[in-house]
Amino acid sequence: MQLSPKLTQLVDALRCLPGIGPKSAQRIAFHLLERDREGGAQLGQALNQAMQDIGHCQSCRTFTEQDICELCSNIKRQDSGLLCIVESPSDVLAVEQTGHYQGLYFVLMGHLSPLDGIGPNEIGLDVLEQKLAQGSINEVILATNPTVEGETTAHYIAQLCKQYNVGASRIAHGVPVGGELDLVDGMTLSHAFNGRKQVQYES
Amino acid sequence: MQLSPKLTQLVDALRCLPGIGPKSAQRIAFHLLERDREGGAQLGQALNQAMQDIGHCQSCRTFTEQDICELCSNIKRQDSGLLCIVESPSDVLAVEQTGHYQGLYFVLMGHLSPLDGIGPNEIGLDVLEQKLAQGSINEVILATNPTVEGETTAHYIAQLCKQYNVGASRIAHGVPVGGELDLVDGMTLSHAFNGRKQVQYES
Repeated sequence: MQLSPKLTQLVDALRCLPGIGPKSAQRIAFHLLERDREGGAQLGQALNQAMQDIGHCQSCRTFTEQDICELCSNIKRQDSGLLCIVESPSDVLAVEQTGHYQGLYFVLMGHLSPLDGIGPNEIGLDVLEQKLAQGSINEVILATNPTVEGETTAHYIAQLCKQYNVGASRIAHGVPVGGELDLVDGMTLSHAFNGRKQVQYES
Repeated sequence: MQLSPKLTQLVDALRCLPGIGPKSAQRIAFHLLERDREGGAQLGQALNQAMQDIGHCQSCRTFTEQDICELCSNIKRQDSGLLCIVESPSDVLAVEQTGHYQGLYFVLMGHLSPLDGIGPNEIGLDVLEQKLAQGSINEVILATNPTVEGETTAHYIAQLCKQYNVGASRIAHGVPVGGELDLVDGMTLSHAFNGRKQVQYES
């Protein structure tokens, strides 16, 4: 049996959502039609507006519908001289949620992956180079993911910083706070040992 | 940190989907923006069209954007004299997928639940009564869910059929095909014993 054309269209379109198969798509379509038509209509409008209007910040490449995002327009952050490099906009959110960092961001929107045809220009390193050349940045904090690609990308950017005499640092790897030692993987544990710090005694 | 207004709107709107919390909504929004803008825009349009145009079939109450759905317009089905009563449009799909049933449907869009204020008129039994009064239906097949509410609803409709001298039958309950006896719950098993059939020997 065929569903009505527009219902079929909706079920097919829902499958673009990550992790949603044919059965879930059907369940969602019926749920919205039966119980939440208003929510469905709002979602439709929000999707259309977002897909049409949201682009990238010209300065840090994160998602925004303005030319320059809120964080980049913040004068305090501009004066900090700090630039945190992350792989995706959700990483910006994660760092911001700590409330600890008060500098600027630069979002690569990916990582170096030559086999997939993703070179320096695809992740905006040309834009980053211009930023470094301007001289307003004192320290670059490399917060790419602790994966092989992330490390490679961090290494590449560190070399770039060296060319422009800008200090570069990598975020610490080690045992997560609240974690238990016997559940931590060996790689993380050896990072934690290598990155150990001298205990400071109060004098 | 605040996301940009339209991104916030999209994340909030995505939470109307069943089973999607704040974290998943954010993940979906970033996924669509990063990797599938076209799919997102198509989904937006499909949602808007579906929520606006899809109503209920005037005859069987299933979802359709036409006045009378495809199944109800089928003359063969009209002539069958069979009417299968189900709780929701997804049940119609499930029955249709068997390819076994060639009659009409009537979708209650719920079940009797007096405590929630859902009486006979809320599940369209007034419309069903008109159908029964017309006299074109020979048998009503009660395929409501095998839950307390479903059974009550089936019982109520069976009484209605009796008033109009229309035969009513309930779908069989028993051990699912391919199931193993020791994994079947007691209620189902006792149904299976009560509903046992004499073995027919070939003569």
